[in-house]
Amino acid sequence: MSSNFKITVYYEDTDFSGVVYHANYFKFIERARSEFIHSLGIDQLKLRHDKMAFAVSSVTAKFASPAHFGDRLEVETDFCKVGGASIQLQQRVLRKQKYIFVADVRLALVLQGRAIRIPIQLKEKLMNWTDLNNKKL
Amino acid sequence: MSSNFKITVYYEDTDFSGVVYHANYFKFIERARSEFIHSLGIDQLKLRHDKMAFAVSSVTAKFASPAHFGDRLEVETDFCKVGGASIQLQQRVLRKQKYIFVADVRLALVLQGRAIRIPIQLKEKLMNWTDLNNKKL
Amino acid sequence: MSSNFKITVYYEDTDFSGVVYHANYFKFIERARSEFIHSLGIDQLKLRHDKMAFAVSSVTAKFASPAHFGDRLEVETDFCKVGGASIQLQQRVLRKQKYIFVADVRLALVLQGRAIRIPIQLKEKLMNWTDLNNKKL
Amino acid sequence: MSSNFKITVYYEDTDFSGVVYHANYFKFIERARSEFIHSLGIDQLKLRHDKMAFAVSSVTAKFASPAHFGDRLEVETDFCKVGGASIQLQQRVLRKQKYIFVADVRLALVLQGRAIRIPIQLKEKLMNWTDLNNKKL
Repeated sequence: MSSNFKITVYYEDTDFSGVVYHANYFKFIERARSEFIHSLGIDQLKLRHDKMAFAVSSVTAKFASPAHFGDRLEVETDFCKVGGASIQLQQRVLRKQKYIFVADVRLALVLQGRAIRIPIQLKEKLMNWTDLNNKKL
Repeated sequence: MSSNFKITVYYEDTDFSGVVYHANYFKFIERARSEFIHSLGIDQLKLRHDKMAFAVSSVTAKFASPAHFGDRLEVETDFCKVGGASIQLQQRVLRKQKYIFVADVRLALVLQGRAIRIPIQLKEKLMNWTDLNNKKL
Repeated sequence: MSSNFKITVYYEDTDFSGVVYHANYFKFIERARSEFIHSLGIDQLKLRHDKMAFAVSSVTAKFASPAHFGDRLEVETDFCKVGGASIQLQQRVLRKQKYIFVADVRLALVLQGRAIRIPIQLKEKLMNWTDLNNKKL
Repeated sequence: MSSNFKITVYYEDTDFSGVVYHANYFKFIERARSEFIHSLGIDQLKLRHDKMAFAVSSVTAKFASPAHFGDRLEVETDFCKVGGASIQLQQRVLRKQKYIFVADVRLALVLQGRAIRIPIQLKEKLMNWTDLNNKKL
């Protein structure tokens, strides 16, 4: 099971080579993560108010096929692991059921720029999702 | 007299129509403003720490000619007026001495989202520049 | 009558002052224009294939109130006039029925970088909309 | 030996968490690649005219430390390998001689969206650099 999110490609996303500029896929999957985190009942504005934020600590990505202006894309987001101080996700961008971009993303929770252990209330919200997820497999 | 700033057009700045995406000119002139404000001895990070920021309150812009990947552009920035609660600038983007974009920009100083009167120390730094400028005319 | 379009504010849209970066409102309204033009049966990819594109020739914008991460915004787009070689639109961004950004946008149709007269088939598609629109007023 | 390139962090690069938005590091290193490729005598506009472009096919990146508004950064770019159909680079972003971002990037040369073998004239330009580079080690 995975969370799904829709993207349309606009002018701003493309470059003069005629296709989506590679860095913008990281924006696409971040939008999907933000909606996903929101759907788990986690308020990123409130986190920020407490000087915390989720930050990408590493990413490995493959660009399989280009996307074009007007394409309707889908982002799939799967939790892989919620650790003490990091979260692992896999995120995939699809066009017409075909994968065009796949990324393994590791997030840290940072407090004023430093990675910290994920507080238990946050972890529970994240784990609920993975528990549900695992039961459904 | 005006402050000058150089820009090179990269992939990220262009779109699939082959030229610079229109909204990115507003980024170009903002970079020039940031360097300009820095050169006046105003620290925008410190302003932010005090919950303040310069914000664009209005802009009128003409796009005269497109720019392409690899173009070396120049941004000219002129103060027009420093008022009690706003700053007026004209900013122009040139390629090979020819104007390709001209914008009249009005800035406000905002404190937690609301426009405030510009504090006297800030105003003096801005006025110094315009005084110098007027004497040279 | 006007065309409506929804936007959510993500990380990428904000800057370190805590609110939406001003230039990004021009991206928001461009997304709305692209959907609008698409809804009129005009294919911008095909235009591009014929070396044509709609380009912003001038814009006047007022930034009334800042938007924040997570805000759900709406973009209203109204045709004002379709001329021989230009199109005038007004576009407004709203949050909870309140205007936070208003822009008057003039578009040109460019062929290999130069403004041209709008071909009659394109003009008819645009005029249909404004005719419908005027009858409903 | 490596090619160096300077970046200043502006408003547009940051997000509401107060630091540089993660996807923008990929823009920073792309600017450095473009200057690097230009310095090898390769004209990307001309490539594009021939329907070709360098495209990122995969990337692995680590985000070690955040960058802030006003930071003066440096990008180091090293060729690792020029193969028949791909180019491997390592690119690093530094602030005050400290690495804050490291990426291993693989590029393909694409012709109308499909990876092709790198033409010999292009390969020679790229190899010249790596030859020079290896002799200096």
